[in-house]
Amino acid sequence: MIKITDINLYTGEELIRDAALLISGTDIVYAGKKENLPHEGENLFLGGENLLLGGEDYKITRSIKGGGALCLPGLVNAHTHGAMVFLRGVASDRTLSDWLEKVVPIEEKFTRSMIYDGTMLAIAQMIATGTTAFADMYYHMDAVIDSVLETGIRANITRGSSSEEGVDSHKGWFADWDGAGEGRLRVFVGLHAEYTSDEKTVAYAVETAGKLSTGIHLHISESLFEVEGCIGRRGCSPVEYFKKYGIFNNHTLAAHCVHLSDNDIAILGEAGVYAAHCPVSNMKLANGIAPLRKMEAAGVNIALGTDGASSNNSLDMFREMKAASLLQKGSLGDPKAMDAEKTIKAATLTGAKALGFDKTGLLKKGYRADLILIDPDSLNMFPGVDPAADAVYSAQGSDVTLNMVNGKILYEKGEYKTLDIEKVKAQALQTAKELNIV
Amino acid sequence: MIKITDINLYTGEELIRDAALLISGTDIVYAGKKENLPHEGENLFLGGENLLLGGEDYKITRSIKGGGALCLPGLVNAHTHGAMVFLRGVASDRTLSDWLEKVVPIEEKFTRSMIYDGTMLAIAQMIATGTTAFADMYYHMDAVIDSVLETGIRANITRGSSSEEGVDSHKGWFADWDGAGEGRLRVFVGLHAEYTSDEKTVAYAVETAGKLSTGIHLHISESLFEVEGCIGRRGCSPVEYFKKYGIFNNHTLAAHCVHLSDNDIAILGEAGVYAAHCPVSNMKLANGIAPLRKMEAAGVNIALGTDGASSNNSLDMFREMKAASLLQKGSLGDPKAMDAEKTIKAATLTGAKALGFDKTGLLKKGYRADLILIDPDSLNMFPGVDPAADAVYSAQGSDVTLNMVNGKILYEKGEYKTLDIEKVKAQALQTAKELNIV
Repeated sequence: MIKITDINLYTGEELIRDAALLISGTDIVYAGKKENLPHEGENLFLGGENLLLGGEDYKITRSIKGGGALCLPGLVNAHTHGAMVFLRGVASDRTLSDWLEKVVPIEEKFTRSMIYDGTMLAIAQMIATGTTAFADMYYHMDAVIDSVLETGIRANITRGSSSEEGVDSHKGWFADWDGAGEGRLRVFVGLHAEYTSDEKTVAYAVETAGKLSTGIHLHISESLFEVEGCIGRRGCSPVEYFKKYGIFNNHTLAAHCVHLSDNDIAILGEAGVYAAHCPVSNMKLANGIAPLRKMEAAGVNIALGTDGASSNNSLDMFREMKAASLLQKGSLGDPKAMDAEKTIKAATLTGAKALGFDKTGLLKKGYRADLILIDPDSLNMFPGVDPAADAVYSAQGSDVTLNMVNGKILYEKGEYKTLDIEKVKAQALQTAKELNIV
Repeated sequence: MIKITDINLYTGEELIRDAALLISGTDIVYAGKKENLPHEGENLFLGGENLLLGGEDYKITRSIKGGGALCLPGLVNAHTHGAMVFLRGVASDRTLSDWLEKVVPIEEKFTRSMIYDGTMLAIAQMIATGTTAFADMYYHMDAVIDSVLETGIRANITRGSSSEEGVDSHKGWFADWDGAGEGRLRVFVGLHAEYTSDEKTVAYAVETAGKLSTGIHLHISESLFEVEGCIGRRGCSPVEYFKKYGIFNNHTLAAHCVHLSDNDIAILGEAGVYAAHCPVSNMKLANGIAPLRKMEAAGVNIALGTDGASSNNSLDMFREMKAASLLQKGSLGDPKAMDAEKTIKAATLTGAKALGFDKTGLLKKGYRADLILIDPDSLNMFPGVDPAADAVYSAQGSDVTLNMVNGKILYEKGEYKTLDIEKVKAQALQTAKELNIV
């Protein structure tokens, strides 16, 4: 059992100063005031509500003193394409369509092993900056599955399908890997977007997700170009088009959702869709600002994602949280529009739910131990008045000192515990050279 | 003489791969291809345009190998209030007026020594994140002068005056310190804002700046509340009000400039005013997005600032560059609206000019050696396709490995060369406790 003390614990619901956590296996068995831990020896016997049995199973195998660190639920990157790290810096300052034109021919050269190399590098970067789970939509997803299982991170994987064959490939992954890694891996059905799939493919994705009883991850209404194109092609918006085929009858993770009509918002809200808001990518590609306030009021669940490193260019969810909050405040003229607590919720609990992980995203008894510590000595965190505000507005990924997923430490004080970072970097660089990117 | 090799040099005008720099005293004496350095021994005898005399003066005292690092002009934070680091995290998620109501009573307790402590901490944070110069508007500016001279950073200092007495205090500072620290210190006349100064004070600030032949630093049109209030009070906008008193006949550094009419923009453009655009603060306080494209077209010079840590909450100019660029792209629907090169220019050359520093902000022969190196091994910088884009969209302050101002190294690989960071942190924390902030 791992004990963490000397922390300010933001559970996702409340701040507990001078807190303690006990982690047994994959789960949190105690989260509360340190002073309420009744016994401080090798074996813990907690009374009342927090009753634990004593003995070997509850032996403290590791005791971590946080030195006043802020402890947060691990951050959830609800929409990315990990291996696009190879394309970071390629074709900057372009529109979505100009940029796709430049990057797609390079992507088409990616082999399975290249995607493994890129995803490993992306995971390394996410782990070091406080992400404990991510939704990856790409291809050669067996390579992504390998990297997820190997590194210990939590992930939802889908292929960005645009054909029935692409949709079909999820069946094997689902049968073999959904729930693998002690529940760290979820397999949804991926559908790229309205403009890349015909009606048969959409219907087949819905049918397949229904049969597997799993969710669907897709891009929706990222650009005005896409929405106007869809109206021209089909006489309705992408949201209306997808509704017609019953997409939203499944648990849906819809990336972007920038250009939505009021009717679109009502549809997504009524279905309780999870939107993966990607503010940095949306701004960088000049797509605009998603109407989060209206979406939230309608019942849409707001999660946060970085999108691929090529259109961000960071995978640091701290930067994403700040961008999300500032954009809503600034564009709505309301500093309370997306406050620190709401922003953290989007980047943790709602993200975890969006990816299909139960009992994840809060730091409470019975939840998975997905958590991070933030360096209290970082100048960014001085003087430390308001931990939630510090996390959203002041911290950045480089302030993370510990990353734990499912009760296992993946990263601590600059050291990776489950991957050889020098090897990962060298391999990724080698691949970038083979691709003639550098 | 310091020699820096094995770098990719972004001069502010062009990228030179495999470059070298030679720095003699405060100045750059060579910036170009490494292969064009004709002699590689202890003494350098360069031919042609780059002629240097040989001998002791040109002995290489320090040779730095960048390992492929990106070398950029040092970043210029064109508007901040350093000692507001004490207020980081105080009163988040509020409007400008609500926030001022909360922070001003705390600020009023600041003593000279407290402002020294806070400014030292702010300077430490700026140095570590790649800022080589900043414009500080606060009070007890003699304390700020001490901290600037001591740490080796470059700064423009002003008091945020709202009385003739406040304006008067600049005279002594100007006489004693303008040009001090081998030209590292500039003293402008500071005027807080339209809503905090009467007409006599404005006229006196103009008169004083004229007599001293120096510039003016002030806040203009930060919030709609301010602009509407001014129209109510004076029947014109803040820009029109200040024009009436001849403010813009002086070199003017105008912070914020968010809410401008077309006439305001024409006035600022015609006068060649330097605007310190503070996008993060403007969004956080829900003030909106400055119309940079129109301003630039009219002739306004766009510099970048973080504003105080209380309304940002970061002092990291890398975050500010990315925010500035993304906001213009996203709000104008044009990914080319503020490209990487333009963003770097705002954060370097234009900032240096705004603060009144000549021959600063480019990495060229004859310019001051204000420069930074960015860790080429940072995962943020992988794979390293486009250095300017990487600097704006991918890098963050924690990637800075070297900060040099006026030819002197202030920070290298995590170590401060001119300040004792543990002492600075301890003293700042002690002060925060005395102020009952923590």
